Amino acid sequence: MKKYRKELWFNTPHRRDFINITSQVEKCLDESDIKEGLCLVNAMHITASVFINDDEPGLHHDFEVWLEKLAPEKPYSQYKHNGYGDNADAHLKRSVMGREVVVAVTDGKFDFGPWEQIFYGEFDGKRKKRVLVKILGE
Amino acid sequence: MKKYRKELWFNTPHRRDFINITSQVEKCLDESDIKEGLCLVNAMHITASVFINDDEPGLHHDFEVWLEKLAPEKPYSQYKHNGYGDNADAHLKRSVMGREVVVAVTDGKFDFGPWEQIFYGEFDGKRKKRVLVKILGE
Amino acid sequence: MKKYRKELWFNTPHRRDFINITSQVEKCLDESDIKEGLCLVNAMHITASVFINDDEPGLHHDFEVWLEKLAPEKPYSQYKHNGYGDNADAHLKRSVMGREVVVAVTDGKFDFGPWEQIFYGEFDGKRKKRVLVKILGE
Repeated sequence: MKKYRKELWFNTPHRRDFINITSQVEKCLDESDIKEGLCLVNAMHITASVFINDDEPGLHHDFEVWLEKLAPEKPYSQYKHNGYGDNADAHLKRSVMGREVVVAVTDGKFDFGPWEQIFYGEFDGKRKKRVLVKILGE
Repeated sequence: MKKYRKELWFNTPHRRDFINITSQVEKCLDESDIKEGLCLVNAMHITASVFINDDEPGLHHDFEVWLEKLAPEKPYSQYKHNGYGDNADAHLKRSVMGREVVVAVTDGKFDFGPWEQIFYGEFDGKRKKRVLVKILGE
Repeated sequence: MKKYRKELWFNTPHRRDFINITSQVEKCLDESDIKEGLCLVNAMHITASVFINDDEPGLHHDFEVWLEKLAPEKPYSQYKHNGYGDNADAHLKRSVMGREVVVAVTDGKFDFGPWEQIFYGEFDGKRKKRVLVKILGE
């Protein structure tokens, strides 16, 4: 069994951002030299997400509006967690979008459908945070 | 390490449908001859979902009503993504239900609890779409 | 390839509870003697969840309030599934929070970020239910 591990670091300019990390994760797969296996990509922080969807700015706007409707940032006083900060909404938004994706590796490539792209979803940014890429296989 | 890969194709009659694919995925496991490992089952399209829940028509009705409340299909004009189509709501609904499941394989069988069944959740159907089954183990 | 399997049992005092199971799952990893691999932790019941977030009581209160807003328990008559019981809301809440997590194992430890903790999320408790821990690697 071969194994590969890398941390990808991000520091987004806004509180909330979506970053297409597909090419960075594909570079990890190339480095791993793994041809068949599974690749786990997960946010290492609990106010961020890794998810797969479409790289289309209109859709990302829709995600932003929709997540704000489901779990509004403000007023901060609506959340008990905010006694410790102001990011309770980020924990909830990340729960909707998910912590991680698992992607199949086939013939040395990610086994994707036609529009699948991997995103880092930041919900409490403007500081350095990490994503873990772990690949197992042979 | 043994590996197995198969695509399952679907073409649902309605825009939204839930299809129990457990027996099809179990057939894949039988074909793989893998006794211990992990099975990844994921939608290869970003307006569809693979999830595990109960095979009960009343519950599926509840899912439909609930997802329409959380992320309504219409009016189409409420979503910026719909400049490219009319399926923004399908991207959001799939985010709630999830892209993939990972199922343990133990003694040649899926290591399920009493009511766990695998479903394909279609949110923008009436056309051919795929699910990936990837099994790794020995 | 090494493999490890264990069921963790829970019987929560309330209909809904969040239980930090990190130390129990870490004990499984120790028992497995696996140094590099992937660990799947999933609810074996479809009205419960395994998820990763913060161990902070204020946040857990926020989750409870938020999930009740997204998928209210009552009135029971709003859900068709409740012809069979009263737990339709638990199926919906679990869909938001997710069935499973996959955690990387590196150097014999869970490859966690600074605040990641594994929780069992119970949405229809007061009875015995299970979580599956499956670890594969070497």
